[in-house]
Amino acid sequence: MGIIMCPGFEAAGIAAGLKKKEKKDLGLIFSKVPANAAGVFTRNRVKAAPVILDRKRIKEGVCRAVIVNSGNANCCTGEQGIRDAETMAALSASELGISEDQVLVASTGVIGEPMPMEKIESAIPRLVRSLQPEGISDLARSIMTTDTVPKMVSEQGIVDGKTFTVTGVAKGAGMIRPNMATMLCFLCTDVSASPEILKETLTTAVNRSFNRITIDGDTSTNDMVLMMANGLSGVVLQHSAHKDVFQKILDSVLIDLAKQLVRDGEGVTKLVEIIVRRAFSDADAEKVADTVAHSPLVKTAFFGEDANWGRIIGAVGRAGVDIDPDRIDLYFDDVQMVKSGMSCGKDVEAEATRVLKKSEFAVTIDLNLGKGFGSMITCDFSVDYVKINADYRS
Amino acid sequence: MGIIMCPGFEAAGIAAGLKKKEKKDLGLIFSKVPANAAGVFTRNRVKAAPVILDRKRIKEGVCRAVIVNSGNANCCTGEQGIRDAETMAALSASELGISEDQVLVASTGVIGEPMPMEKIESAIPRLVRSLQPEGISDLARSIMTTDTVPKMVSEQGIVDGKTFTVTGVAKGAGMIRPNMATMLCFLCTDVSASPEILKETLTTAVNRSFNRITIDGDTSTNDMVLMMANGLSGVVLQHSAHKDVFQKILDSVLIDLAKQLVRDGEGVTKLVEIIVRRAFSDADAEKVADTVAHSPLVKTAFFGEDANWGRIIGAVGRAGVDIDPDRIDLYFDDVQMVKSGMSCGKDVEAEATRVLKKSEFAVTIDLNLGKGFGSMITCDFSVDYVKINADYRS
Repeated sequence: MGIIMCPGFEAAGIAAGLKKKEKKDLGLIFSKVPANAAGVFTRNRVKAAPVILDRKRIKEGVCRAVIVNSGNANCCTGEQGIRDAETMAALSASELGISEDQVLVASTGVIGEPMPMEKIESAIPRLVRSLQPEGISDLARSIMTTDTVPKMVSEQGIVDGKTFTVTGVAKGAGMIRPNMATMLCFLCTDVSASPEILKETLTTAVNRSFNRITIDGDTSTNDMVLMMANGLSGVVLQHSAHKDVFQKILDSVLIDLAKQLVRDGEGVTKLVEIIVRRAFSDADAEKVADTVAHSPLVKTAFFGEDANWGRIIGAVGRAGVDIDPDRIDLYFDDVQMVKSGMSCGKDVEAEATRVLKKSEFAVTIDLNLGKGFGSMITCDFSVDYVKINADYRS
Repeated sequence: MGIIMCPGFEAAGIAAGLKKKEKKDLGLIFSKVPANAAGVFTRNRVKAAPVILDRKRIKEGVCRAVIVNSGNANCCTGEQGIRDAETMAALSASELGISEDQVLVASTGVIGEPMPMEKIESAIPRLVRSLQPEGISDLARSIMTTDTVPKMVSEQGIVDGKTFTVTGVAKGAGMIRPNMATMLCFLCTDVSASPEILKETLTTAVNRSFNRITIDGDTSTNDMVLMMANGLSGVVLQHSAHKDVFQKILDSVLIDLAKQLVRDGEGVTKLVEIIVRRAFSDADAEKVADTVAHSPLVKTAFFGEDANWGRIIGAVGRAGVDIDPDRIDLYFDDVQMVKSGMSCGKDVEAEATRVLKKSEFAVTIDLNLGKGFGSMITCDFSVDYVKINADYRS
């Protein structure tokens, strides 16, 4: 896949017996030198033990390793869950020869079952021995749940003649791949930046990527995005121009990963961008895009390749923002279906169906009211989605 | 079905050629004497032409007839749509020999196509000639879209020795049967009441029934509930005790119809009541019940008969209300799955599966925080739901 592992980092992924069939289920990412760090965590009121632990530890702004398991969410597991997450960090730290408060923990899997700690504990030495720069793809595999392909990407930028790298791995997200209802993303980079700047750029990039494929409040108990920066490139993010270059690369990495998540969504056959233009405000536009993007009726129509714009207009109307129904224009890619709230007639149906048969297309809703803009990336809602989710635990 | 048509009312339903295969698609309900009326309408910002017309006319508080068609929503049809709705009312009024502003109009079907007025106009005389008290079941059939069974119910109450009747018909609702995305309900009763009292009791009953199967903001472009009261029973709703008797019967009629809607929902195999107890407030409890009731993950797990309470806890956590994860208790009927936020163990799984195999059961979420209570009636999310909605228009 042409992934470049960020210099100074190593990764690993092994099978520890948490998942069936010898599948990889325990991963590690490690910075060989001290690194600053930042994280964005789920807003769900129910937080898994690793989230509770990491939110505390990340306040120091430093982190050198993340241990992650799939197959068990370590959520709704009480005090024992917290102790288990701490033990995972402590054992990794001991094997790596670093301080245990510089290790973060992530989990994804079934909620409410105790962690199989004896399996994890006995696997950690082997996990640490497996660390290598090329281990990034093993790591990407070890965090998969119902994902069908591992998801990673790397990009490089140049500041003052120095090249820096951002490498990221991710797994299935909230509304897109809600089986485990967990989205995890780990990023490593060799820029040098304060924890505050890392947090600021990461939050911005998350809002431009993952938060456009899932609604804010809709995060799961385990979601997290973690970024470590070890400074080895010599690129220091101080001037705002340098920050802008880094932000652009980081945005691009996260948007790429977000689209990978959508394309690999449960039963997904189509990736659809919902673009809302000329609302009264950006907030209004985002609310409309969000309501349309999450409507089961709209999503099943996409699956059926049915140019049923009435369902989209229905969703626009119930988004709870001020609109004027008689001003709405609507397009599938560049095919206009609705003008001033009314059908453009039967003639455009064939053209629209041609758009809907594509695996990626855009729906543009022009409210013709103000300057507000917002967009979301969504997918269709298929028969397979239901099958996968009905059968998941059994 | 043992339906008693309310005295003084007649109904009819015929095939006018709007739907294929000679299916009934045009209906009429008529009060032989003057009647007071009240209505509850969609909150969607996009309103179909009949909704716009009726909201204006119902302000007078009188109505003697409702003409309704299926197969076309008369929505996103501009000025012509309004004129078409007015014409439907005017022609019916002329055949019935009443004033046209005493006729209301309802439509359900595809959005954005012009009304086939020549078919409707030529069918109205035949529709009026078909009126008879037993026509109620034809009416119930004429408003069906993807409904598989007609939905009607009648109940009687006694006030001061006098018997009154409430008779209702309905068709598929918002989130439950969102194919046409329309819920219609027509009620006739022979009590005597002011339009204000009718509106008050109707709104209360709707909040206790239809609004518990679909979220407030989620109404379609065409939803409406209309009630006519002709006073023929001699029961006059003046004292609050009399009103209470009527309210109880009206609630019962609407809850019965609401459950009929859920049971006949697209691809539905299970009716599930979500009960939330001891939230900080009723509003909090309702928000939690609502979030759980609409979660695709929870609904697919019901379809899979999977006791996956982790998904329910995940939905509780993202409902946006104050909770304490360590206090949550959760039950499937009387089988406790979660105590103080943690699993009750593997032993209860078999019992839980027995509950989930039933066609109707309850999920009780006890937040153990305050006195707030709320509940919703929901259904499972099946493979057939997607199939029906993907193929709908084609």
